[in-house]
Amino acid sequence: MILDKVNMPNDLKQLSLDEMNVLADEMRELIIKKVNTTGGHMGPNLGILEATVALHYVFNSPVDKFVFDVSHQCYPHKILTGRKEGFTDPEKYHVYTGYTAPEESEHDLFKIGHTSTSVSLAAGVAKARDLKGEKGNVIALIGDGSLSGGEALEGLDNAAALGSNIIIIVNDNEMSIAENHGGLYDNLKLLRETNGDAELNFFKALGFDYSYVEEGNNIGELIKAFEAVKDSIKPVVVHIHTEKGHGLEAAVANKEKFHWILPGTLDVKEDSAVSAVESYDSFTKDFILNKVKTDCRAIVVNAGTPGVFGFDKEFRKTVGKQYTDVGIAEEHAVAYSSALAKCGAKPIFTVMSSFIQRTYDQMSQDMALNNSPMTMLVYWGGISGADATHLCSFDMSLIGNIPNIVYLAPANKEEYLAMLEYSYNQNAHPVAIRVPMGELVSTGVADNTDYSMLNKFKLEEKGEKIAILGLGNFFKLAKEVKSELKSRLGIDATLINPRFITGIDEELLENLKQDHSVVVTLEDGILDGGFGEKVSRFYGNSDMKVLNFGAKKEFSDRVPLDELYRRYHLTKELISDDVEKCLKVACCVHN
Amino acid sequence: MILDKVNMPNDLKQLSLDEMNVLADEMRELIIKKVNTTGGHMGPNLGILEATVALHYVFNSPVDKFVFDVSHQCYPHKILTGRKEGFTDPEKYHVYTGYTAPEESEHDLFKIGHTSTSVSLAAGVAKARDLKGEKGNVIALIGDGSLSGGEALEGLDNAAALGSNIIIIVNDNEMSIAENHGGLYDNLKLLRETNGDAELNFFKALGFDYSYVEEGNNIGELIKAFEAVKDSIKPVVVHIHTEKGHGLEAAVANKEKFHWILPGTLDVKEDSAVSAVESYDSFTKDFILNKVKTDCRAIVVNAGTPGVFGFDKEFRKTVGKQYTDVGIAEEHAVAYSSALAKCGAKPIFTVMSSFIQRTYDQMSQDMALNNSPMTMLVYWGGISGADATHLCSFDMSLIGNIPNIVYLAPANKEEYLAMLEYSYNQNAHPVAIRVPMGELVSTGVADNTDYSMLNKFKLEEKGEKIAILGLGNFFKLAKEVKSELKSRLGIDATLINPRFITGIDEELLENLKQDHSVVVTLEDGILDGGFGEKVSRFYGNSDMKVLNFGAKKEFSDRVPLDELYRRYHLTKELISDDVEKCLKVACCVHN
Repeated sequence: MILDKVNMPNDLKQLSLDEMNVLADEMRELIIKKVNTTGGHMGPNLGILEATVALHYVFNSPVDKFVFDVSHQCYPHKILTGRKEGFTDPEKYHVYTGYTAPEESEHDLFKIGHTSTSVSLAAGVAKARDLKGEKGNVIALIGDGSLSGGEALEGLDNAAALGSNIIIIVNDNEMSIAENHGGLYDNLKLLRETNGDAELNFFKALGFDYSYVEEGNNIGELIKAFEAVKDSIKPVVVHIHTEKGHGLEAAVANKEKFHWILPGTLDVKEDSAVSAVESYDSFTKDFILNKVKTDCRAIVVNAGTPGVFGFDKEFRKTVGKQYTDVGIAEEHAVAYSSALAKCGAKPIFTVMSSFIQRTYDQMSQDMALNNSPMTMLVYWGGISGADATHLCSFDMSLIGNIPNIVYLAPANKEEYLAMLEYSYNQNAHPVAIRVPMGELVSTGVADNTDYSMLNKFKLEEKGEKIAILGLGNFFKLAKEVKSELKSRLGIDATLINPRFITGIDEELLENLKQDHSVVVTLEDGILDGGFGEKVSRFYGNSDMKVLNFGAKKEFSDRVPLDELYRRYHLTKELISDDVEKCLKVACCVHN
Repeated sequence: MILDKVNMPNDLKQLSLDEMNVLADEMRELIIKKVNTTGGHMGPNLGILEATVALHYVFNSPVDKFVFDVSHQCYPHKILTGRKEGFTDPEKYHVYTGYTAPEESEHDLFKIGHTSTSVSLAAGVAKARDLKGEKGNVIALIGDGSLSGGEALEGLDNAAALGSNIIIIVNDNEMSIAENHGGLYDNLKLLRETNGDAELNFFKALGFDYSYVEEGNNIGELIKAFEAVKDSIKPVVVHIHTEKGHGLEAAVANKEKFHWILPGTLDVKEDSAVSAVESYDSFTKDFILNKVKTDCRAIVVNAGTPGVFGFDKEFRKTVGKQYTDVGIAEEHAVAYSSALAKCGAKPIFTVMSSFIQRTYDQMSQDMALNNSPMTMLVYWGGISGADATHLCSFDMSLIGNIPNIVYLAPANKEEYLAMLEYSYNQNAHPVAIRVPMGELVSTGVADNTDYSMLNKFKLEEKGEKIAILGLGNFFKLAKEVKSELKSRLGIDATLINPRFITGIDEELLENLKQDHSVVVTLEDGILDGGFGEKVSRFYGNSDMKVLNFGAKKEFSDRVPLDELYRRYHLTKELISDDVEKCLKVACCVHN
């Protein structure tokens, strides 16, 4: 194998073009096998393979510096920078993260997993070089899908005015995760159709020098283009036309499906029939389809990640004009939805917890300050074993401290459905709902709560001495803790389902003082700035003891969930241990 | 006066062009007099006067809908939509806000005060119209300075693909608050120089129809241009070249100074000599100038608001290449600074508290996750009587709950200087410093604290029974409360200067349990998600009573500061009252 001779970028420079082509094929095979075994980003890595070989052939990393946007496409780079055993040796498949990681290699500058950041970061890298009087090229790689994000656009505007070397490779595979949306993409199309010669050129309009490579999976062509811009003394864009999933028929045929795959996807010969299993996702889709059918004002908005919500092609087609995918553009998504709501439409913005933080100012100013009655559905919110770049444990602390927003945490199917209806029909507030995670819970009894009565917690079971507030996903855990305390201490604890994240039920909490000495709060997110602290503050001047359970403020990185639960004392046993200790302090319970 | 005949937009339609020109002059005089009396945005309102007259002449508000970006330029619009007495009658100068406000008029759609939002909002307005099968034009007005913000760029990309009527008026006065920065502005210049005919056209590249009006202060020309696009069935940009401060010589001569002025600015004949008075601003500037002079790695970054920090033209010139104003582009500013720090430069990003929320994701992912040792200086943080759009009380809750960031609250000059040095010289963490507000406090004794020992609070005065934690700006209030408690109760309270916002000193707090029964926290920001709640959580399982004082989570709107302090119990008397009440509960103090 050629790859046997290649450990670091320098080894590449000894190869002929033919050898590099063989090398690319070898790498492709490794990536396909590895990703199909572990799951991961398939299409983006296959599409950028030849370009990565050409970049490392032409430039001299780490003196020349690469910044990969979102780093969904860094596997070939990892193979060529000392980490190939993470792809050749199945035992080591999990050694390296799926994203660039400075702790792994000096060839990775940043830990990256959110989109649209590479150009801004590269501008900083280039400016640091200039300040220190150093030399070298700075190369940002960015996909066409990521270009629509505000940070990328701000970065392009500024990078163009940098006045020194910065090379931006626009990896145009004609796709975001799903299809692209926005006027910019018509310009990319025009540029592709004219082999880069069209007069109307978004990049040139910003002030960049510009070149185009039609055969973006042709190493020889790419090398020519990169050599032409190497050591450029001014900002330049190289627009390369690549094929997402290149070299893997299934991935080319179904680019969206193969953007990121689960283990074994290639081994399933046909798409299984659409699952009829009920889930929070299916309820949401049913709700939307029903509204869209009966109400012309209904509209569903998302920012470039329809797959997260199960919005497949058929769903998108059915919803038609009442579906807007704004592309990677969460800021626009919130402002746009806010205006829709203000003008009498009924927008439902769906977003993954990790990405809601891309639009704080718009939530605060465009939405909350204007009290726009839109609905935000926050998916995947909760503690997880995810990569540090995709944690979903910050949304409650983020949304929960903005005035005017009603943020709800349903604990089961019936509550979720009732909250959806409430939010859709009301006109008083922006409402966010944390779509439950994990196993489907159903009470079998319709929820008739009037959620317009804000901050009313549900007293599920009245007990004594100890009250357990189990928020959303953790209501189930609260029930387990109640059982555990019963069996350990013989105490019938009170069980409360708060349902509101953004406010506390002062009357209910006040009443607890009569016959309770310990209040326990459980929340599926970080404690800092979260729900429990508000309860602690409320009881600050009283004798009530309060124990807050939730995640620590940290960027945990691929830590297994059960380990995190132990770390944060989020098991019925550990919580009960802490409650027992606390009861000893709460003297009035001693008897 | 012509204005006597004009109360609402319809009245305008009866006027001849000559009458409209006279009307514009009358309005100009009123605006100059009013703004010079009350303070406010002068240049932007004078620049857009003629365009506003023309817009209301051509379009039919509120059937046709206007969205004003940042709404720094809405005074002429207010005059023409039923609110002229706010300009003709000095008694009513304060009746209307300086921003668009739906509660004032149906001609204002949104409450707006942050930049770069109008295109996204207008896209939502237009889509709502289309969903409901309604008619009418939707017009977004946006200044050239606001174009560089991510939300505006995301909005433009999406608006271009809307497929129906949306008219974007680009008000190009060749200025942001200060000068513009970024490649986009070279394109605007080229378009101006070619009377809109240049082939390279940023807006056309995005897919907009485009027209240009060189005489953007000529009502007749503007009417022609607006009539040409009225009822357009597709997205269109009208690029108008206006003069900031038009018709007021002083404002034209010094556009930056007259962007927003203090009362009476026109009456001061000459710029007073540069003030030599010491202030936190002057310390910061001295610090930066010193670093820049001695260290080529030093660089100061801001996002389009140099005036907030006192970075005047002379300062900018002196700092030279070590100064980057990224324009309205906070996301880029943080990512860029983060990369600078990661690559060995020493970036200092200065930002107003109200705008730090425009870049949460970049603080979290680009900066905190990468532990980039950059310095962020947060200005104006604190409770204020500001307009609801410019509150500065959310930054601690926002920054304070992101992992890895060290957020510091100095209580005096010496601490501030020591923290600046610490932050500049360290390489371990992103450090944010909340630049103190209000009167300068100096101890006269250099602060030699080693701030790399994180989360160590300073025990200023050891007392008993009650401990008062006065954070940053509120350390002064803590001292007052201590005196008040001494005189009321004869108790020598313990006085603590926490200095760290992002973590608590567990050892010190633990020790307080020995001889204290009440802990009081004071913070100059919202309580929700803030500093005090972390202290409450810490003491949750103990007998310690905790009282958190700070602002309520709300969008207060031009409420006088002393009224807010009363509302939030932020006076020594009200705090002492609450402490007294609490002492009665804390039985162990009874004696």
